[in-house]
Amino acid sequence: MMLSYATSQSGAISSLSSGQYSTVYNVLSLAIASLLFTALYLLLSQRQVAPRYRNAIVVSAIVCGIAAYHYFRIFANFQESYPAGATIDAAHVLSNVEFNEGYRYVDWFLTVPLLLVETVAVLALSRAASQRLLVRLVPAAALMIVLGYPGELTLETGPRVIWGVLSTLPFLYLLYVLFVGLTKALEGKSPQVRAQISNLRWILLASWGVYPIAYAFPLIGGDFFSGAGGFVLRQTGYSIADIVAKALFGILIYRLARTQSREEDPQVYGDGHDLQRVA
Amino acid sequence: MMLSYATSQSGAISSLSSGQYSTVYNVLSLAIASLLFTALYLLLSQRQVAPRYRNAIVVSAIVCGIAAYHYFRIFANFQESYPAGATIDAAHVLSNVEFNEGYRYVDWFLTVPLLLVETVAVLALSRAASQRLLVRLVPAAALMIVLGYPGELTLETGPRVIWGVLSTLPFLYLLYVLFVGLTKALEGKSPQVRAQISNLRWILLASWGVYPIAYAFPLIGGDFFSGAGGFVLRQTGYSIADIVAKALFGILIYRLARTQSREEDPQVYGDGHDLQRVA
Repeated sequence: MMLSYATSQSGAISSLSSGQYSTVYNVLSLAIASLLFTALYLLLSQRQVAPRYRNAIVVSAIVCGIAAYHYFRIFANFQESYPAGATIDAAHVLSNVEFNEGYRYVDWFLTVPLLLVETVAVLALSRAASQRLLVRLVPAAALMIVLGYPGELTLETGPRVIWGVLSTLPFLYLLYVLFVGLTKALEGKSPQVRAQISNLRWILLASWGVYPIAYAFPLIGGDFFSGAGGFVLRQTGYSIADIVAKALFGILIYRLARTQSREEDPQVYGDGHDLQRVA
Repeated sequence: MMLSYATSQSGAISSLSSGQYSTVYNVLSLAIASLLFTALYLLLSQRQVAPRYRNAIVVSAIVCGIAAYHYFRIFANFQESYPAGATIDAAHVLSNVEFNEGYRYVDWFLTVPLLLVETVAVLALSRAASQRLLVRLVPAAALMIVLGYPGELTLETGPRVIWGVLSTLPFLYLLYVLFVGLTKALEGKSPQVRAQISNLRWILLASWGVYPIAYAFPLIGGDFFSGAGGFVLRQTGYSIADIVAKALFGILIYRLARTQSREEDPQVYGDGHDLQRVA
């Protein structure tokens, strides 16, 4: 009784079945492995792209590294918050340690602006054009995260909706800059490069679209979405969105840098077939 | 009763609400992530600047690394000093483990002189001019930290004011050297470089200004500033000031090194557009 009072106060989930626990546990570990080793892969592959694209690759690696750090913390925190019961089949009841959603927001506060930095960096625009995009994208991204956090902390419908809407405004502005402002900056790129940049934007949109959906679960209500089922789905959704928006996105940034390096200097960055043909 | 006697003796905060605890916890983790990954980014980007600027980048990375180490310690110490209560909503009561502000002073004792070393190093002055600045800046910085520590340990107004004033004297001397002595050393730099150095100094002044303000909270008095609220604000202020004065400052040092490298050797350190235009 006391426990359920305590949990209803904070909105924390009071208990997870062993199956629900395992699902979140494995998804968090999948995120650690994906993000940590994408960071390493990108660092190790830096020299496969021309020098002007290397900053984009290093920033992509740093983004995956920051996210991996936070997933290590989230994983350890999850184990402490929902310790094993008396038997392996028993429910994992919430301990006295809060499950801290703050880690995700701290992570996004750092990584989402950096994702836009890597996107602009890989385009290798003129200094002035890059600057023009970044002064619009980076503050809007930071604002989007900061405005979302107060809404995440509450389960009351009113404030959650208001902060959600406020957070959506900079998100829409970001989309506008990415789909309109950025398009103008791409004149002169080859069709292949333009197609890859277009894919990059759609992946960004698709993965970023998952976050507001997971955020809205408690608003949908019902036993499932505001209970343990919704918690599992939200943690899974956030984790998979992070893997796509950071690890997969980083790999695509790397591919785009490779394509451009090859177009500009096939002798050095070609795949070897061109070299053989030349020779 | 006994607990409150013990805590009033040492001036330690006897209890934090779960919200206050989470705020400090998340800010400390933000500091770890910001400092650790800025250190990595700087190390990985070393080769993007001309050899004469690389020492400044390595020292900047070392400063962020030392600070990240101390934040790992502070984070673990904070968890031990204020363990979770019976439920996640319960207050975090001070345990038998002291929350050690000494970590911050040890950190500053090492990093603040090094921040001045990296600032002088990135200017790439003549050996004699660098030497002249460093023999004045480094001892003053160390003295400033050493004189502040006895004041941090006490909550008595008299000693806290006296040590605070003593610590301010070398701080004012530092500002004099940075804003007057250093300006003379900048003749011959391009307007863009001078503007960036000017920004650098203002960021140093703004972020270093936060430390004495946080230090003075217990002097302001009242329930808030000398209680748990003041503790949260002081920890948050110190942490954000460290992120700005070390991580953000390191990135600006890197940018300044890039600008100078590009001016001096556009063929190697230009962004590629210059190269295409040349070709």
